[in-house]
Amino acid sequence: MAPQYAPSLRSRLAPLLCLLQTAFIVIYALYVELDQNVETSGTTFRIFYSEFQDVNVVVFLGFGFLSTFFVRYGFSGSGFNLLVAVIATQWAVILNGFESWYHRGKIRIDLKSLVVAEMYAASALISMGTVLGKTNPVHLVLITLLEVSGFALNGWLLQTFLKVRPLSSITLLHIFGAFFGLTLTWILYRKDSVQRFEKEKSDRKAGLFCILGTVFLWMFWPTFNSVLVDHHAPGRKLAAVYSTYLALAVSAVTAAAVSVLSNPKGKLNPGHMQRCTLAGGVAVGVSMSVIHQPWQAMTIGFAAAVISTLGFRYLKLHMLLAFECHDTCGVLSTHGLPGLLGWLAHLLLQLMDCDDHTTAIRFAVFHICTLLITLSLSLSMGIITGFLLKWNFWRPPQDKKCFDDQAFWEVGKIQTIHPYGYIQ
Amino acid sequence: MAPQYAPSLRSRLAPLLCLLQTAFIVIYALYVELDQNVETSGTTFRIFYSEFQDVNVVVFLGFGFLSTFFVRYGFSGSGFNLLVAVIATQWAVILNGFESWYHRGKIRIDLKSLVVAEMYAASALISMGTVLGKTNPVHLVLITLLEVSGFALNGWLLQTFLKVRPLSSITLLHIFGAFFGLTLTWILYRKDSVQRFEKEKSDRKAGLFCILGTVFLWMFWPTFNSVLVDHHAPGRKLAAVYSTYLALAVSAVTAAAVSVLSNPKGKLNPGHMQRCTLAGGVAVGVSMSVIHQPWQAMTIGFAAAVISTLGFRYLKLHMLLAFECHDTCGVLSTHGLPGLLGWLAHLLLQLMDCDDHTTAIRFAVFHICTLLITLSLSLSMGIITGFLLKWNFWRPPQDKKCFDDQAFWEVGKIQTIHPYGYIQ
Amino acid sequence: MAPQYAPSLRSRLAPLLCLLQTAFIVIYALYVELDQNVETSGTTFRIFYSEFQDVNVVVFLGFGFLSTFFVRYGFSGSGFNLLVAVIATQWAVILNGFESWYHRGKIRIDLKSLVVAEMYAASALISMGTVLGKTNPVHLVLITLLEVSGFALNGWLLQTFLKVRPLSSITLLHIFGAFFGLTLTWILYRKDSVQRFEKEKSDRKAGLFCILGTVFLWMFWPTFNSVLVDHHAPGRKLAAVYSTYLALAVSAVTAAAVSVLSNPKGKLNPGHMQRCTLAGGVAVGVSMSVIHQPWQAMTIGFAAAVISTLGFRYLKLHMLLAFECHDTCGVLSTHGLPGLLGWLAHLLLQLMDCDDHTTAIRFAVFHICTLLITLSLSLSMGIITGFLLKWNFWRPPQDKKCFDDQAFWEVGKIQTIHPYGYIQ
Repeated sequence: MAPQYAPSLRSRLAPLLCLLQTAFIVIYALYVELDQNVETSGTTFRIFYSEFQDVNVVVFLGFGFLSTFFVRYGFSGSGFNLLVAVIATQWAVILNGFESWYHRGKIRIDLKSLVVAEMYAASALISMGTVLGKTNPVHLVLITLLEVSGFALNGWLLQTFLKVRPLSSITLLHIFGAFFGLTLTWILYRKDSVQRFEKEKSDRKAGLFCILGTVFLWMFWPTFNSVLVDHHAPGRKLAAVYSTYLALAVSAVTAAAVSVLSNPKGKLNPGHMQRCTLAGGVAVGVSMSVIHQPWQAMTIGFAAAVISTLGFRYLKLHMLLAFECHDTCGVLSTHGLPGLLGWLAHLLLQLMDCDDHTTAIRFAVFHICTLLITLSLSLSMGIITGFLLKWNFWRPPQDKKCFDDQAFWEVGKIQTIHPYGYIQ
Repeated sequence: MAPQYAPSLRSRLAPLLCLLQTAFIVIYALYVELDQNVETSGTTFRIFYSEFQDVNVVVFLGFGFLSTFFVRYGFSGSGFNLLVAVIATQWAVILNGFESWYHRGKIRIDLKSLVVAEMYAASALISMGTVLGKTNPVHLVLITLLEVSGFALNGWLLQTFLKVRPLSSITLLHIFGAFFGLTLTWILYRKDSVQRFEKEKSDRKAGLFCILGTVFLWMFWPTFNSVLVDHHAPGRKLAAVYSTYLALAVSAVTAAAVSVLSNPKGKLNPGHMQRCTLAGGVAVGVSMSVIHQPWQAMTIGFAAAVISTLGFRYLKLHMLLAFECHDTCGVLSTHGLPGLLGWLAHLLLQLMDCDDHTTAIRFAVFHICTLLITLSLSLSMGIITGFLLKWNFWRPPQDKKCFDDQAFWEVGKIQTIHPYGYIQ
Repeated sequence: MAPQYAPSLRSRLAPLLCLLQTAFIVIYALYVELDQNVETSGTTFRIFYSEFQDVNVVVFLGFGFLSTFFVRYGFSGSGFNLLVAVIATQWAVILNGFESWYHRGKIRIDLKSLVVAEMYAASALISMGTVLGKTNPVHLVLITLLEVSGFALNGWLLQTFLKVRPLSSITLLHIFGAFFGLTLTWILYRKDSVQRFEKEKSDRKAGLFCILGTVFLWMFWPTFNSVLVDHHAPGRKLAAVYSTYLALAVSAVTAAAVSVLSNPKGKLNPGHMQRCTLAGGVAVGVSMSVIHQPWQAMTIGFAAAVISTLGFRYLKLHMLLAFECHDTCGVLSTHGLPGLLGWLAHLLLQLMDCDDHTTAIRFAVFHICTLLITLSLSLSMGIITGFLLKWNFWRPPQDKKCFDDQAFWEVGKIQTIHPYGYIQ
């Protein structure tokens, strides 16, 4: 008979977290310094700080509550999000500071480096969405470390060999995170996925928590897209804000329309409103540097919402049945496809701007190479991570304990020893 | 026997949304341009942006979650709020840019025009509160379009014939929205309203989501009131912030006091804490240009909370029984009466400032005309909209399906085809 | 037989709130003026305003939703938080303006004075955490008034006799609030506390609301710590932001690690994730003026999370059984111990900076005196308040009605007269 309880993580998670955190503290003690340079950061600080807070809201609150829609998996959805984001941020600061460390012996922390690190964290959180519910926190920490490393490596490759600007390589986070995660969940496939896990379901209140996350993401996405655009080019920053806002507005309406249209009874699907309303923001994020007119942003938002909603409705099940790829949160439709659409829009809009054929072809080759490198790196990192996680040493939860907080959290029957008892 | 299912909106909602969104994209493509003028908007942008985000929070999150208090209507409350706000904003940008289009052939989008458009959206959301639960999304979209058009017409009338300043006409949004909505719900009256609809009830968790909305509205109301005050008059902006903050603080205490006092068992009513705590902010919003002392703001906050709480306790039921006006969210007490109180406070404070009788009488006549025009326009637009919505072509939900997400959302029994199943 | 219903507060709460609010309005009318000085506050306003909003989020939303984890006490947790915060802020503005009133006859309100007042409110909210669920709103209002007065007196004593800077005396709010509350709950001890109150339990959704509060506190804690650091020393402000951020990041990981390690089944405790993740922010808040390196902040965050989690796991029950001190929200572990740790870290780091022995000893004596005065004042004010509240005149809820909204809120069976009915 199979064991009734989920395997204890005491001997896996606790040492891993302790070790990791101690290592981070030691590295920070040796090599990291605070940037207190008043001249360079004094005035910028005040302006940049509220944008930094907006990004915090997107990463820690928005992504976290977007993952709370399973009826018995809310603590894991929001709690592990915080854990993963915090580890990813600390790790990304180190990876990004590598070059500065190489040249000056020190890594400087300022608000910008923290924002960049949180972007890396966002890409890890996107990957996490594909395997949510079927993994334990040890898995998630390992995924985080490897995904962030892979994304950093991708950025370094693109910047070194293709001279892609740092900002452009960061905007690929949706594509990298999504395909990394899809490969991962394809390798970690479990047979039970076909006939839905026992606890893989939502209810009204859990759905509302998820909508809360959606609304926060929706509201602060313009900042998320524009925050790294240079402050010395306010025009471009403005354009990024307006474009994202318009694309998101169009996405919300379009997602609702397509959702109703594709349902035989003409009903809205909560999952579509929770995720596909954000598709426009993702697509614009990848292509914003070439958007100059409102209609461009709006058309991209429209197309992104259409493919995202259709993908959610038809592709998700198909992926599961035909490819044995169980994408828990529909990351392919939320980030993958809209990201690719944004990449395509970028290509088309740039080609339309080109005067002569040579530049056009050169740009097209360059742009396609960027995508190919990103895709192949994300797929190969996903495969490596997947095989690492298949190792039973990490004590994966049994099928019965998937999508259940009880495997990792002290919930359930009330025991006097707990600070306060939990009832189901 | 009546049909068991709510009528499908597939052939109504989907074409309406598609058509509307396509029309918006075409109009924006032809006539709208982004304001990328760095000189005029570069520095202002950075300061204005965080205020813009605060208004976003008020409109998309605050109003949305304030409508989630019905136990089975949370998706509709928050989801339709997003849909309506997004449509209203896009439509209001077009209407507000009409004059600029007439003179220059183009409409410019900048943060200010978006904020103004969101104010219009707020007035539509207020109207929506009166009919929430008894309408379908097609109704809501139509209400939005007509209400925003009416409010824009009202602003144009006031500015053209009475030379009212634009800001002052916008602050009337609470009064316009409330009385538009009240007329609407009076015309759309259903007999079942008297003995409460089957699903018109709240529970603890839904109430908490509503309080979440309240707290966000409460926190960001000072920005909502002050955002359009000219940046070149920081003193007035400061006064608007402080006044709103103090009025809201007093409202919270007063609403609690009156709520306890008016209950035979001395208990607080959750509805009062959710809505009447905001009355002070509404009243100050209408009268802020003449408030110079803290006690004025505080007294207005006190009076607004008293009439709002009493209105909620006694008037709401009376409106239903005597006037057949079923005001779902108590918009009369939350926005209507405090708005009128603010208008009255504006009149009185201005009269106290006047030195001679002529100016005083002239102002009083002007101020009363402003109100009369607003009221009569909101009432007549409400009547027109009401009769349009009575048409059965729009497929209103049956009485049994009122206040039930199931009429419009894929919730209920778990079906394998859904991205993730929903349980009740 | 004991009465079945909780005693009515109609004759206690309503007059108290009315009287208090009227008194505040009168005092504000006579002595308070708005600071509309454009020269001094014009430019500062724009920068300071978004930080002011962040503090609002911490005080009104963060603390409020952190108290919603009891399954039947959500309205009280969030609603009374708003009530108490609003009263505390109004009262603290008056107390803090006393000196200015003495010299100039007027108290000026500006954003800074409001932020300081909200810090005082935060200290009252921390105290409230110890007695939550076992008191009625009348008690809470009295606690607020006395705690804020005590904290103001403490600040005055420290500034007058020890020349402590105002900011340093405010950072002691965690220590003052925690030990005031602990004394209070020790005096108000009820025998039923030992075998848990009937309704003293949480569930999944209530826990998620609590996590929502946690995440908001976590995100905006850097502002909470840095907001009062002088704008003319941006370097120090930056250091405060970075230190708090890093300490919080480390706290989140460490709290998870210790929580898993200290549970026999290797499970995370939701209470630890909800509260101990914030310990680093508390500790850094007390010691931030001497933190110059990232590793210092991170080590403090690590240590704070360890003692906070261990305190929550072992000390809380021990306090209850051995000392008859029933600390509802674990304030000792969340604010008390991390606060003391921060105080100790401040001492040690300062001593390491000192060159000669004389300065070092002088500082140590000064620092210890600061703590002793704060502790003795908080304990004695706690005792006084405790004995005042023991008076049955205030109608405390029966043991059966503890941790139950129904004692104070109109929830329960649906009655037609209510604006909208409540179901359990």
